[in-house]
Amino acid sequence: MPKTERWQWYVEQFSPSEEHRHAIEEFYYAGRTPYQSVGVVRTPAFGKMLILDGDTQSSQADEKIYHETLVHPALAAAADRSQILILGGGEGATLREVLRCPDVERATMVDIDAQVVELSKRYLPEWSAGAFDDPRARVIIGDALRFLDEDQSRYGAIISDLTEPLEDSPSHPLFGAPVFAAIKARLQDGGIYVLQASTAGVHNCGLHAKMARSLRGFYRHVRSFYTHVPAFDNDWAFIACSDAVDLAKLDERTIARYVDALPGENLFYDAQTHRRLFALPLYLRRELEKKGDTF
Amino acid sequence: MPKTERWQWYVEQFSPSEEHRHAIEEFYYAGRTPYQSVGVVRTPAFGKMLILDGDTQSSQADEKIYHETLVHPALAAAADRSQILILGGGEGATLREVLRCPDVERATMVDIDAQVVELSKRYLPEWSAGAFDDPRARVIIGDALRFLDEDQSRYGAIISDLTEPLEDSPSHPLFGAPVFAAIKARLQDGGIYVLQASTAGVHNCGLHAKMARSLRGFYRHVRSFYTHVPAFDNDWAFIACSDAVDLAKLDERTIARYVDALPGENLFYDAQTHRRLFALPLYLRRELEKKGDTF
Amino acid sequence: MPKTERWQWYVEQFSPSEEHRHAIEEFYYAGRTPYQSVGVVRTPAFGKMLILDGDTQSSQADEKIYHETLVHPALAAAADRSQILILGGGEGATLREVLRCPDVERATMVDIDAQVVELSKRYLPEWSAGAFDDPRARVIIGDALRFLDEDQSRYGAIISDLTEPLEDSPSHPLFGAPVFAAIKARLQDGGIYVLQASTAGVHNCGLHAKMARSLRGFYRHVRSFYTHVPAFDNDWAFIACSDAVDLAKLDERTIARYVDALPGENLFYDAQTHRRLFALPLYLRRELEKKGDTF
Amino acid sequence: MPKTERWQWYVEQFSPSEEHRHAIEEFYYAGRTPYQSVGVVRTPAFGKMLILDGDTQSSQADEKIYHETLVHPALAAAADRSQILILGGGEGATLREVLRCPDVERATMVDIDAQVVELSKRYLPEWSAGAFDDPRARVIIGDALRFLDEDQSRYGAIISDLTEPLEDSPSHPLFGAPVFAAIKARLQDGGIYVLQASTAGVHNCGLHAKMARSLRGFYRHVRSFYTHVPAFDNDWAFIACSDAVDLAKLDERTIARYVDALPGENLFYDAQTHRRLFALPLYLRRELEKKGDTF
Repeated sequence: MPKTERWQWYVEQFSPSEEHRHAIEEFYYAGRTPYQSVGVVRTPAFGKMLILDGDTQSSQADEKIYHETLVHPALAAAADRSQILILGGGEGATLREVLRCPDVERATMVDIDAQVVELSKRYLPEWSAGAFDDPRARVIIGDALRFLDEDQSRYGAIISDLTEPLEDSPSHPLFGAPVFAAIKARLQDGGIYVLQASTAGVHNCGLHAKMARSLRGFYRHVRSFYTHVPAFDNDWAFIACSDAVDLAKLDERTIARYVDALPGENLFYDAQTHRRLFALPLYLRRELEKKGDTF
Repeated sequence: MPKTERWQWYVEQFSPSEEHRHAIEEFYYAGRTPYQSVGVVRTPAFGKMLILDGDTQSSQADEKIYHETLVHPALAAAADRSQILILGGGEGATLREVLRCPDVERATMVDIDAQVVELSKRYLPEWSAGAFDDPRARVIIGDALRFLDEDQSRYGAIISDLTEPLEDSPSHPLFGAPVFAAIKARLQDGGIYVLQASTAGVHNCGLHAKMARSLRGFYRHVRSFYTHVPAFDNDWAFIACSDAVDLAKLDERTIARYVDALPGENLFYDAQTHRRLFALPLYLRRELEKKGDTF
Repeated sequence: MPKTERWQWYVEQFSPSEEHRHAIEEFYYAGRTPYQSVGVVRTPAFGKMLILDGDTQSSQADEKIYHETLVHPALAAAADRSQILILGGGEGATLREVLRCPDVERATMVDIDAQVVELSKRYLPEWSAGAFDDPRARVIIGDALRFLDEDQSRYGAIISDLTEPLEDSPSHPLFGAPVFAAIKARLQDGGIYVLQASTAGVHNCGLHAKMARSLRGFYRHVRSFYTHVPAFDNDWAFIACSDAVDLAKLDERTIARYVDALPGENLFYDAQTHRRLFALPLYLRRELEKKGDTF
Repeated sequence: MPKTERWQWYVEQFSPSEEHRHAIEEFYYAGRTPYQSVGVVRTPAFGKMLILDGDTQSSQADEKIYHETLVHPALAAAADRSQILILGGGEGATLREVLRCPDVERATMVDIDAQVVELSKRYLPEWSAGAFDDPRARVIIGDALRFLDEDQSRYGAIISDLTEPLEDSPSHPLFGAPVFAAIKARLQDGGIYVLQASTAGVHNCGLHAKMARSLRGFYRHVRSFYTHVPAFDNDWAFIACSDAVDLAKLDERTIARYVDALPGENLFYDAQTHRRLFALPLYLRRELEKKGDTF
């Protein structure tokens, strides 16, 4: 194909001074839901990409890195994996990873944006890989905060896959002390709360540290972990919270037993990867030790 | 709309060192026909745009500048406007302008790419504005060269709206002495042959001059004219050929009478605009006087 | 040179939805004066380019199109060419064109930005081509408005080469009724005031029309003319004002005599080009006839 | 500063379908040496950046991540740190990190490109931080391969900081069995050879695996390790080779003692970071286990 035919591009603007652009090999969708703008395209380097409000949400090439990291350390550490709650996660890949665990009896997923769920089923079936049809899946379209208030169940793990709490994001009200308290109220004793928690790069780890500081008032063990997700152009951080387990010290055999029980093969996560995820570099430990404001 | 939602862009690459990009406000289509790649999008500055092989083919904001310039000088000058032949012009706007002329009894349009015609009807109805349904329109999907060979009619004006004769373009074989002869054979005595004829900018008018040189062997009067078409980022040239009329000397009253007879209003063309189009700047006249190779 | 070595680019942003970018072949300068940001680079398509506040100010490939159009129609029409005043024009090319005219005894140029003048002498000597050293040149670094107030001379032509009167431009206060009055006070009876006057494209000719409307209160003949300047990506307009001469009707012989007297060769302008410049297309005449606000 | 003043950009093209661009806040240098093109700029997100052949070579914001990772695991593991050899490393930061180690008696650096060394001293003094003036530094401008052939010394660690062995890179001949043999001949028994070794992302770890495969024929222990370097937009890999030590099993106390002896503070590396670097995710272990061709 002559070069000049590459006329469609996805341009992700990180800031007024930085952008990353990808040629679009196939265009699937662009539109707005009541909550956000949505795009679905395919690019040569990353395969299909889901774009929310102009930012890469996940890519076919590396979504497993993100979703295995979000789900499996928490589930490996959870004392009781029968009831799992997912906040957000509309594209269905978090649900997919949760349901791979044979101990899970019910995975409840609450996402506010029905259209993202529908668009993902239609254009990104590789993400959910049938999870939406699993009888153990309970998908609730609604506000996560209201659900937490009204729900009576308790969960062995709560997994928050919400977008970053930036000012104009639909996830903004979902961050702060009242929400942290509401989430903890839904955790079983000794349950695990894990959340995606902004970037961990040497030049952009401040918001993550603030999130970690905020959560330390609620849990005995608050552990940051992170991995580079190539399609995000960033080191992406997560936080695991628990009164019972320190995930940074989870022993290798526990992890290996958990991973061995999963059907299929992981791309990224196992005991050695767990060690990588929770071993933090100096700059990030220093940032996490700093005092500062909280949500 | 927050700025970061602008993630879809149309990037037109003019050369490895130059490109122009437009945010896409609405995406309609991207695909390939057997002949070329086709895109249809809407942009804030130019409205809908038709993109062939990665280059802007026409835009809603200024397609009338292009199409009025291609059609009306030739028709204003033609002795007999009853039979008009259009080569190419798949989006239907050349046909639209031709059919605005009440003297036209039949406008025959020959375009090789049925899909461009269909996509234009569907996504760019403003371009044809009903022309495809005009009983005077005869639309033939096929090879222009073969049509010229097989056709027995003669025309008062032949209007060539083919893409540039670049190496890898479907229009490439449609340029050269045999084709020029075939076209002239279909012209009535004293008829007008007009064609879009590449760029006329001070830094890129060489191909145009070569086209003009090539045609001087076939007609007594070969006149270049041009206008800037903003969506093309270029001064766009045309050539009018005739043994009977020198279009650069067409008198104002003839033009005014012709324009007055058109229903509706022109955006761009009338007698004063005609004067502008055919008054060429020094650099272009010098380029046109140079000797050099021909097609 | 392998393609990946093209890492330096000049990106001109026309609006949040449109930009044009040029590979930088050679970088000469980037900095800020007290009045504006300045860049000087060389690009493959346009040669050296002067960039003020992020916008292309002129390019080696086509600055003559701009400067010949700004200067020569006015000088061709002026009854007395001995005293000429230039407002702005720091790069020296307007001065160069004025001084080519052998009737000019003194060309006074007033520009506020000494650094642009110095940078142009150093990096863009092709623009001034020795004009700054011509004994007939009088270059005054200072505020044009103050100069108009304090000056006692009168001029056969006043040429305004100021940047557009946009809100944050150093030229903004130089537009409006008091300034128009001050300029007219410095014109000889029957003198010509000519100014560059924004864009004339079908989608962006509103500011130009407002400038023309504003000036009609001051002069008997106010004529718009324009040409495409490729490096600007735009049709660029000018306005010629005079109580004595209607430049749109300047006869060909007057122009030819004027041009013949210039040493060297023009690139763009002569009598035929004059006809082109002042023959306006329908959409622009309609826009100019509209009523509306004034400066 | 108004947005439109951002006209200078550094565009890094990863492939025809992907590029990352950075606004240039300050431009320092662009030119060509006999070996490569060189650029030095400052950007808002990454501070000063060194650009070789259009690719980011290092950035002020994160060069310590790269250079600490390249140097310290190897030096921490080396039995004898008195004599260290650096191949490449023109900007001086590898030398800086080597000389921070008080056990080092002589650090010999061989780089072919004198101009990169000089430009780095001039524009990037933060990189070398005085290392070039350290009496223990021996800087040799010359071909690394010839140096290896002629040199008689032996080294406790050899650190290869050469650019990737891509076809058109000056480092291309520096990769292959003869060079591996020449390097090993200069290592002390039980010495460490460490090299930067291409990318380790899930979608681009093939070249790295080939490098590792190639080296396994030469050393008993060949260990891959990697970290994300934000300015590279990539997970960057390294390989540590030794007949004596398996760096993946280096004990924490050895590392801690080594790090404690360094003056100043590391940004990135210590025993916990070492654990992170050498704990590889599943996909990369699988890629490293594959059979395939070698250099």
